[in-house]
Amino acid sequence: MTTEQFATRHIGPGPDDERRMLEAVGYGSIDELMDAAIPEVIRWHGTLDLPDPATEAEAIAELRALAGHNTVAVSMIGLGYHGTHTPAVIRRNVLENPAWYTAYTPYQPEISQGRLEALLNFQTMVTDLTGLATANASMLDEGTAAAEAMTLARRASKSKSPVYVVDADALPQTVAVIASRAEPLGIEVRVLDLDVEDLPGEFFGLHLQYPGACGAVRDHAALVEAAHGVRALVTVAADLLALTLLRAPGEIGADIAAGTTQRFGVPMGFGGPHAGYLAVRSGLERMLPGRLVGVSRDADGNPAYRLALQTREQHIRREKATSNICTAQVLLAVMAGMYAVYHGPDGLRAIAARTHEMAGRLAAGLRAGGVQVADVAFFDTVTASVPGRAAEVVAAAAERGVNLRLVDADRVGVSCDETTTRAHLEAVWAAFGVPAFDGAVDVALPPALARTSEFLTHPVFSSHHSETAMLRYLRRLADFDYALDRGMIPLGSCTMKLNATTEMEPVTWAEFAHVHPFAPAEQTAGYRELIGQLEGWLAELTGYDAVSVQPNAGSQGELAGLLAIRGYHRERGEGHRDVCLIPSSAHGTNAASAVMAGMRVVVVACDDDGNVDLVDLDAKIDKHRDALAAIMVTYPSTHGVYETGIAQLCAKVHDAGGQVYVDGANLNALVGFAKPGKFGADVSHLNLHKTFCIPHGGGGPGVGPVAVRAHLQPFLPGDPGAGHDSTRPAISAARYGSAGILPIPWAYLRMMGGAGLTRATGVAVLAANYVAARLRDHFPVLYAGNKGLVAHECILDLRPLTKSTGVSVDDVAKRLIDYGFHAPTMSFPVAGTLMVEPTESEDLAELDRFCAAMIAIRAEIDKVAAGEWPVGDNPLANAPHTAAMVSGDEWPHAYPRSVGAYPDGVDRAGKYWPPVRRIDGAYGDRNLVCSCPSPEAFES
Amino acid sequence: MTTEQFATRHIGPGPDDERRMLEAVGYGSIDELMDAAIPEVIRWHGTLDLPDPATEAEAIAELRALAGHNTVAVSMIGLGYHGTHTPAVIRRNVLENPAWYTAYTPYQPEISQGRLEALLNFQTMVTDLTGLATANASMLDEGTAAAEAMTLARRASKSKSPVYVVDADALPQTVAVIASRAEPLGIEVRVLDLDVEDLPGEFFGLHLQYPGACGAVRDHAALVEAAHGVRALVTVAADLLALTLLRAPGEIGADIAAGTTQRFGVPMGFGGPHAGYLAVRSGLERMLPGRLVGVSRDADGNPAYRLALQTREQHIRREKATSNICTAQVLLAVMAGMYAVYHGPDGLRAIAARTHEMAGRLAAGLRAGGVQVADVAFFDTVTASVPGRAAEVVAAAAERGVNLRLVDADRVGVSCDETTTRAHLEAVWAAFGVPAFDGAVDVALPPALARTSEFLTHPVFSSHHSETAMLRYLRRLADFDYALDRGMIPLGSCTMKLNATTEMEPVTWAEFAHVHPFAPAEQTAGYRELIGQLEGWLAELTGYDAVSVQPNAGSQGELAGLLAIRGYHRERGEGHRDVCLIPSSAHGTNAASAVMAGMRVVVVACDDDGNVDLVDLDAKIDKHRDALAAIMVTYPSTHGVYETGIAQLCAKVHDAGGQVYVDGANLNALVGFAKPGKFGADVSHLNLHKTFCIPHGGGGPGVGPVAVRAHLQPFLPGDPGAGHDSTRPAISAARYGSAGILPIPWAYLRMMGGAGLTRATGVAVLAANYVAARLRDHFPVLYAGNKGLVAHECILDLRPLTKSTGVSVDDVAKRLIDYGFHAPTMSFPVAGTLMVEPTESEDLAELDRFCAAMIAIRAEIDKVAAGEWPVGDNPLANAPHTAAMVSGDEWPHAYPRSVGAYPDGVDRAGKYWPPVRRIDGAYGDRNLVCSCPSPEAFES
Repeated sequence: MTTEQFATRHIGPGPDDERRMLEAVGYGSIDELMDAAIPEVIRWHGTLDLPDPATEAEAIAELRALAGHNTVAVSMIGLGYHGTHTPAVIRRNVLENPAWYTAYTPYQPEISQGRLEALLNFQTMVTDLTGLATANASMLDEGTAAAEAMTLARRASKSKSPVYVVDADALPQTVAVIASRAEPLGIEVRVLDLDVEDLPGEFFGLHLQYPGACGAVRDHAALVEAAHGVRALVTVAADLLALTLLRAPGEIGADIAAGTTQRFGVPMGFGGPHAGYLAVRSGLERMLPGRLVGVSRDADGNPAYRLALQTREQHIRREKATSNICTAQVLLAVMAGMYAVYHGPDGLRAIAARTHEMAGRLAAGLRAGGVQVADVAFFDTVTASVPGRAAEVVAAAAERGVNLRLVDADRVGVSCDETTTRAHLEAVWAAFGVPAFDGAVDVALPPALARTSEFLTHPVFSSHHSETAMLRYLRRLADFDYALDRGMIPLGSCTMKLNATTEMEPVTWAEFAHVHPFAPAEQTAGYRELIGQLEGWLAELTGYDAVSVQPNAGSQGELAGLLAIRGYHRERGEGHRDVCLIPSSAHGTNAASAVMAGMRVVVVACDDDGNVDLVDLDAKIDKHRDALAAIMVTYPSTHGVYETGIAQLCAKVHDAGGQVYVDGANLNALVGFAKPGKFGADVSHLNLHKTFCIPHGGGGPGVGPVAVRAHLQPFLPGDPGAGHDSTRPAISAARYGSAGILPIPWAYLRMMGGAGLTRATGVAVLAANYVAARLRDHFPVLYAGNKGLVAHECILDLRPLTKSTGVSVDDVAKRLIDYGFHAPTMSFPVAGTLMVEPTESEDLAELDRFCAAMIAIRAEIDKVAAGEWPVGDNPLANAPHTAAMVSGDEWPHAYPRSVGAYPDGVDRAGKYWPPVRRIDGAYGDRNLVCSCPSPEAFES
Repeated sequence: MTTEQFATRHIGPGPDDERRMLEAVGYGSIDELMDAAIPEVIRWHGTLDLPDPATEAEAIAELRALAGHNTVAVSMIGLGYHGTHTPAVIRRNVLENPAWYTAYTPYQPEISQGRLEALLNFQTMVTDLTGLATANASMLDEGTAAAEAMTLARRASKSKSPVYVVDADALPQTVAVIASRAEPLGIEVRVLDLDVEDLPGEFFGLHLQYPGACGAVRDHAALVEAAHGVRALVTVAADLLALTLLRAPGEIGADIAAGTTQRFGVPMGFGGPHAGYLAVRSGLERMLPGRLVGVSRDADGNPAYRLALQTREQHIRREKATSNICTAQVLLAVMAGMYAVYHGPDGLRAIAARTHEMAGRLAAGLRAGGVQVADVAFFDTVTASVPGRAAEVVAAAAERGVNLRLVDADRVGVSCDETTTRAHLEAVWAAFGVPAFDGAVDVALPPALARTSEFLTHPVFSSHHSETAMLRYLRRLADFDYALDRGMIPLGSCTMKLNATTEMEPVTWAEFAHVHPFAPAEQTAGYRELIGQLEGWLAELTGYDAVSVQPNAGSQGELAGLLAIRGYHRERGEGHRDVCLIPSSAHGTNAASAVMAGMRVVVVACDDDGNVDLVDLDAKIDKHRDALAAIMVTYPSTHGVYETGIAQLCAKVHDAGGQVYVDGANLNALVGFAKPGKFGADVSHLNLHKTFCIPHGGGGPGVGPVAVRAHLQPFLPGDPGAGHDSTRPAISAARYGSAGILPIPWAYLRMMGGAGLTRATGVAVLAANYVAARLRDHFPVLYAGNKGLVAHECILDLRPLTKSTGVSVDDVAKRLIDYGFHAPTMSFPVAGTLMVEPTESEDLAELDRFCAAMIAIRAEIDKVAAGEWPVGDNPLANAPHTAAMVSGDEWPHAYPRSVGAYPDGVDRAGKYWPPVRRIDGAYGDRNLVCSCPSPEAFES
């Protein structure tokens, strides 16, 4: 390969590195290693049918051509997706900045304070605007947020009714997602036109849209009261921009608010990714799904942020989890929060007022021209009646470059937003055949609904309004964090590899960024071509027959896959099959997803080597043979091992009438060497943010396509915009999920080609085995497969050392920060261990730097063991060390400052300093604070 | 103004800030303040005739439209400008990263180690490839580098001959720049076809192109020997990519190498900016003009980088300076150096070999088709003979989207580069009317000219070849530096204000980035429209009649302006006028430029208030009345004062037949309030990188347009590509200089509008007066004008404190680093002082933070004065404090660590730590090392 070939840039180790790594592992070539590591029973020996690899320049040229097949029109369709101006300072310094987009989920809070503060801003923005007590950060989109609100209401309501009432003026795709989620759970969704229909006598929850999809701003107070009267909870799906002018959901008694923050500076991207939000009234905060940022304190007692109430996470609660949501939309939530920081309350109000004025002017013009406009209060959306003429009007507008909403044959919806100009209104008027309007407009909202309460009063929302101040705030927060642009993030199961710039650049091109998900098909040909190719390539890589990119996170892919299995069984008259076997080593989302798909989880034991216990499997199959729906396994296993029994396992389940779900989280160890769809699986979800280079974004976006064999294809996700389909569920709000970031994996696959992808897998496995070989003498490597080899990750067992010295996994993880590293995965899948996944992108120098740090830490542990350092006062127990700590006037510790500050091998000049000391998570959970603390809290 | 208006984002202080600042200064409004500050005699009371301000979205839309009027063709024109692939990781993380582009010139080396290392890489790359001892970093372009090489040869040669011989196969624009520079200096340029013409008997220098403009690779060894025989120095203008395959200039005995590094990943940008280079053999390094990075050591004895041999700078040598070059092309030099780091020696060789293979294939195809190709060795460029048909061939190629070089009626030049593809060759063959060629190609260069020596052997060129490694290297270096994205850079005279993202984004659009400067006019309509508008707006702002954007730095603008004056006098038969009056307070470049324009410098004294001494002016005018060519003054003065005598001064000079040159460096204090072209000046240069928001890029690019009244218009710069023009000099190599970054000031002016610009001036003056008012009681403010007011900057006098305590300006500057600031301008224009220019972009919080730091520093000085801290061991003397220092196991200092590390008011969590302690500059000058030191040097 020449340097012109992208694979040489993506894969860290060059030929010299590779030779030295192979020597250490004891193999002559990567092929030899892979032959030894991968069980022949699953090995695939073909040549991947992908186009020859493109250079970076060629891939960009092809993407430019695809982008050129999209048309960027002015979209006034509304329905939860609006034009918005991303402030350029935010686009460049967040969305296009690797310090933000290559960051991992903030599980190591000491080195994630920047994005945690940004997310706290987001939560504060949502709680202030919705008038509720607590908001999370964040949901995947408005549709799934609304669905989570429904299940939250189910859990919280004291009503026994299975009925969930949905406002007929809710967004159609929201209704579809709610319905798809409700059905397996036995919830009965009733869609009612609440303007004319009465509420039922009993129901456990009520979903209201505010303003409605048609634009109407209704006073929901009476409905809320009625719902509370029957012990139902009320969710208001509210538009945050409208809430700057309208009474907040919390002020009318809503229990829950849900929605999207897309129009706060996040491009539409043909449907995503954007951050959804979910906020609850006081008393419900501990039932909130998803990630919640809270304020706690560090070892010095200073305020510090971290994820709160982590016990709610699936990896702890497993089948008792009430939601499978795992990945959030961190990068987009950061953007939306920063949009509020940049504009401040007055700026947001001004944007809302201008938007409202545009809509008012539009309506006035239509009425002046004789078009009937619905006689309701509205914020930004106007519904006009043009009996029999709606399609014609929509077409006439499209010809003028403006997309309108075709409500039905007689009605057209028009939504204004902050990008709306006079010229756009003129195009709309012309499309309706009415003259341009210059008269006076009355744009006041009904006084009863006008907002009177303050919001965004925290100083952060009024301190960064000049671009200079904003730029510095973003830099300051970015500098708090450790991301891939500083060094290795060896997160087991998370595959933190290169997110190449060439893959990222197209995401912010207008032709991909500014496309409405409901834009006419002829405007989105480029997107659909790209998605078609991507789905095809993913099918080829996995050996499946069909792929849907709709699920916008891995957890959603799981749900989609399990619903496909469920649909398949039902279609065959075997709807009683509802048992899902899950090995004890599985990721917690698996169990949670199974429950959401209406299945019962039965755990299968693992043997001492960490493999699925085939004897126990037989027993469980026997016990549940008639009810067996599926087995869900991860391959290679979550232990990082190629289990040799996989083919047998698949056969056993199939023989019993079950389907096999292979979790694709570890696909990075298979691509080019084995295809789940060929070795016995029926369905997998993939994680495009793991194997296929979508950056983790600090905890999202993710994309979790579902891939199936042909018999499951009819049950893949449908088109949520087309309404509820009982066969093809709506997994996310948009047909193609987070379409806006699909150019990333497209570019990765296009530039790597089959040979490059195969080599990447080989190098990833080589790197894991190299780390295992180098560290084995210092920490036991917990599981291994063929010939003592691991797959793409290895588990280092700290339990014996912890037992003998008291030094915990946490201590080691935090001490790694002092050495300039992000910790590996802690205590998953085995408590008391570290799981290391180096990936193919780390070169030998970085792998060696990591190994050297781990070996040095082992020597430090030995000093504790030898009594040289006290158990409670040593560099491990006190890690991470901040600059403030090591430069304090007093130094009361049992080891020198230099040992704390600059352990062996650390880059002194370029050292990364965490902004806080170790954080006391439990304190924060006991004293839950989930919005911005006052500046005084930081005074030392 | 609403937040939608860009001016509210550009200008830091909002209405509340403004009110509080006015209170402190004692005025009721900005208008009142400006009425008081600006002498009525120069005050302009009109309304600027600029278009109404556009929003950011509108400006981007207009720029998109202008960009759409350019055509991005495949340019195979060559002549020093080539297609190149900017590695995306470098584009995003350098060119689009404010940490790099908002940095200032590295005069404070402790907080500039990142870009200094990057520049040292650049220097090492140039010296390695040219085979010479020392290279600077960097020159403005190849043409000016060649001109500087000529004057360097003049200084270094022992020959008395005035003759400078230039190879006829040199780049035409280089010949034009050399000729324009030579003429005022009395150098006789002789352009000779050295293939057929003999060298003259005596000459002091020889300029050779390698490979020649026609593509020929000649063995220059005999010419070099002959030149040395007559004590002449030889400059080889060499293509660095070719040098990966060809014998280096140093290896054939060249004294000097000059050229461009554009094709190392820097977009063509319609002519610039790119980094030129200049390298010299051992013995000439102390004569090298421009900025030279060298290795020295810090207070701990660790290696540290800084600008070497700063005594060569004009502000020290003034009229004895041998070059006026000041701004370099740092940002572009960083990119080019990183391109070499990313590709490494093997990668560069592969790119060169592929390029050469393309050219060989092209030639073989032409020959096979019966077209005559010059029978010479070539690297990337082929000259084909098509008698009488050249224009037709060029037109046919253009129709196929490929630009070729029309050499003359009979010859066509075709240059290949790393972007050349088979499809491009096919288009060229088709344009020539020959069939596509598939045969074998012999692509070996003549063995006698083949490079055998190693290059880029330093580990930095082989350690960062994966994108992951490259990304981290760029982040690490960026983190070493303090730029505007961290905090205020209050550099007097340098106007470090916001470089808004919206202004920056268009620079990397393909339609602006990938245009060859000699592309056909019909392809560059958008550029020319943009430049026309920009020149018009600048004329309106300054009150002049015509503007040329060609000068690619302020110093070049000065030269252009003085040459216009010279041309004017000569045209009127007054060529004997050669005295240029320059006040003693002037910036050193003024004097250097005057010398380069063939003038004699006569210094005019300043009075005690820092104003030009009008009595001395009279005396000097009297003495030189007949020879008086011009006066050069800065307004407001370099003391930061609106001198009231300016109109009188202009009149006196005009009366004596002289012209008035007003240096526009301080135009930020005038825009909207006074116009030099209206208050008596004949010519000014502007600094688009000061007043008009082009970022400083760590020390360039700059743009220094020259603006003149109508009578000087005929003498504005000409078109260098069209050859030498004795009336219209060639100031830089390209017709529009650094055209590629002109969208920045265009966007700034378009978004600010007349009112916004005027307000910016008012706020800048208010901010300077606010700082002066707050600090006056702590440090004397040295000069003031009307009513004790300063203009846009203020001078804080430290001399009394230095005298009484020994605490120097340097100590205060370095201590400001501990407080989180870049120091103000040191010891200019008055030794022992600091000049503070806050600009309009800093909000009150940041101004207050700076004032608080200065006041705290004053208190620290008082402790030294009081004997509380020893003179030699206090936080000032030891500043800046590194993290390593304050966390050292020993602390032998007379004050607590916490005082060193975290002085009052510092952001503890977000503190910026310099990577090195105070640097000993003199040590490095005594032990000059100007290429990358070995990694072992950094072992502590």
